[in-house]
Amino acid sequence: MKTLHIDLKDRSYNIHIAPGSLDRAGEEIKKVCPRAKKLYVVTDTNVQPLYLDRLGKSLSEAGFQSSGAVIPAGEASKCPTLLSGLWEGMMKEDLTRTDAVVALGGGVVGDLAGFAAATVLRGVDFIQIPTTLLAQVDSSVGGKVAIDLAAGKNLAGTFWQPKAVLMDPETLNTLDDKTFSDGMAEVIKYGCIADRDFFDFLCAHPSRAEIMANIEHVLYTCCDIKRSVVEADERDTGVRMILNFGHTIGHAYELAGNYEKWPHGQAVAAGMCVAIQLGFGLGIMENDEGIQSLMDLLEAFGLPTHIDCSWETMVKAVGLDKKNQGEDLTMIFLRKMGEALPTKMKRDAVLENLEAVYGQ
Amino acid sequence: MKTLHIDLKDRSYNIHIAPGSLDRAGEEIKKVCPRAKKLYVVTDTNVQPLYLDRLGKSLSEAGFQSSGAVIPAGEASKCPTLLSGLWEGMMKEDLTRTDAVVALGGGVVGDLAGFAAATVLRGVDFIQIPTTLLAQVDSSVGGKVAIDLAAGKNLAGTFWQPKAVLMDPETLNTLDDKTFSDGMAEVIKYGCIADRDFFDFLCAHPSRAEIMANIEHVLYTCCDIKRSVVEADERDTGVRMILNFGHTIGHAYELAGNYEKWPHGQAVAAGMCVAIQLGFGLGIMENDEGIQSLMDLLEAFGLPTHIDCSWETMVKAVGLDKKNQGEDLTMIFLRKMGEALPTKMKRDAVLENLEAVYGQ
Repeated sequence: MKTLHIDLKDRSYNIHIAPGSLDRAGEEIKKVCPRAKKLYVVTDTNVQPLYLDRLGKSLSEAGFQSSGAVIPAGEASKCPTLLSGLWEGMMKEDLTRTDAVVALGGGVVGDLAGFAAATVLRGVDFIQIPTTLLAQVDSSVGGKVAIDLAAGKNLAGTFWQPKAVLMDPETLNTLDDKTFSDGMAEVIKYGCIADRDFFDFLCAHPSRAEIMANIEHVLYTCCDIKRSVVEADERDTGVRMILNFGHTIGHAYELAGNYEKWPHGQAVAAGMCVAIQLGFGLGIMENDEGIQSLMDLLEAFGLPTHIDCSWETMVKAVGLDKKNQGEDLTMIFLRKMGEALPTKMKRDAVLENLEAVYGQ
Repeated sequence: MKTLHIDLKDRSYNIHIAPGSLDRAGEEIKKVCPRAKKLYVVTDTNVQPLYLDRLGKSLSEAGFQSSGAVIPAGEASKCPTLLSGLWEGMMKEDLTRTDAVVALGGGVVGDLAGFAAATVLRGVDFIQIPTTLLAQVDSSVGGKVAIDLAAGKNLAGTFWQPKAVLMDPETLNTLDDKTFSDGMAEVIKYGCIADRDFFDFLCAHPSRAEIMANIEHVLYTCCDIKRSVVEADERDTGVRMILNFGHTIGHAYELAGNYEKWPHGQAVAAGMCVAIQLGFGLGIMENDEGIQSLMDLLEAFGLPTHIDCSWETMVKAVGLDKKNQGEDLTMIFLRKMGEALPTKMKRDAVLENLEAVYGQ
């Protein structure tokens, strides 16, 4: 068992990484939400048959009344309609400001339930129990919650820190390989942007079995990297941008596949390959030795290193990406493997350089 | 012209109270949002024909591109559907994180536009130009933004401080008497809870004309009282509750009238009359001399001192009121005129006492 403490201005909380922790969720929640009587549990149709009963048992043993909602699995659930459905559902259960919302599932469940928790009654406590690798390494730290709009992903949301994050690595055993790999893209990203040693560790353990044999170390390291970045920039206005490595172009791929064909991790994997090449082409990366290692590592986990995408979609994605500030866009390049460099560029300059790499 | 400085942990801003300030809005916004290029202006069908052109002229003279939405006037617009309509509209205009949202109108416009501003792209700058007395004295300070749900008012929202509040008292001249009185209920509330001298001043100026002759003083005093309360309790967990004087019971009246028959101020007026009597009945208020003065003052502005409401609605409103914490409910009573006392009571005790006063 490992515990990581996240220390933010407004709120501090712990991430508990422990096999079997799902069965102890009730007592952990009792510690951080001593005044809560009711818990509103949000999960999805994939996770519900696997883990909801076990969680419910633990919550009732700890003396909580629980109710909740099961949303359809998939990105399409991060929509205004389901958000207001959760709001109304929470009010039907007479949730009060001292009660709490629990998210049991992947990133979609966490983002939607977190946004609902942040805004119902102007904010109630929120507990995350992420069950996918992507959610465990990505959405457990940072407090970003959101839904998608017609114009793109995560365009309406806020920042809302959980009271605790409970990670049970055993839940990863029920993921299919594609979903596991989806999380590996973000795991690999952490090595690229901030920790060369961790990147090398991953290269030395290039299979799901080897990662699972070291899963507590992997989860802890990823969350710890994200922690150090987020603690330095809670509201996402500066250094936190390095977490977007591969994401601007990844968004284009997600858009190209209508958020269905290319899951987030796969889009980010191919996006990182373009970004690392772009950075090398611009002379920001000193030498190209990292490029091949990154592509090999991604391929070892069955992740794409190239995705076809129309030029129109790319232009639209770069033009609309919400990380841009006014007319400029901040691209994240690698100076070398393990060190990211945010670089402010004009949008048209990004597109020009992108054309050079992408047109190959 | 008067300026009031609001000093909060995260954000500070000024409230400018000046006749004719609508025509100088562009230059004021330029000062507080120097990086903004686009402004998304939200107004309603009542205000649009009166003031939107003047505001638009001022914004374009200051070099802003402006676009926006005109929502139907009335409480029904504070709904999830219009919230997501604003989100989508802002994205269609390619708003970026350095741009800003402007609310031109009363409380409904401010609450809805403010919630959209707080959440679009996880938060963009927000400027308030309140055009009703209620919005000027109530929603200009405190940062509360929200929409209504089926179960009640303001049940989904957040806290989002504006970058500036621009008040043009001349906009009050186009309010009908009923809407003006609606704001007077909140004005009178400030005297009741925090400032005996101000209450006496109002008793000495018991007409719309006399209030308008002293409007800068009235607006400044109300906002200054709210400022001192909000600065002490930004997240609404303690002393800020005194602002709810008359509101718990007022909510029952609003609910009874389906949020249409009884506007907020009228419901609060009658709610204050019940609350002051309840407090006297419980022995919290030392003597009853304030009760008649309050009722006389409300009547001078055409405000109701009693509203019929079924007992079922009252029970529902008291049971569901989101200001309660767990099973307890915090009622706001007056110890004497000009001094509020938050009092934690069991819900059933509130109902029992309410029955005694209300049953009269």
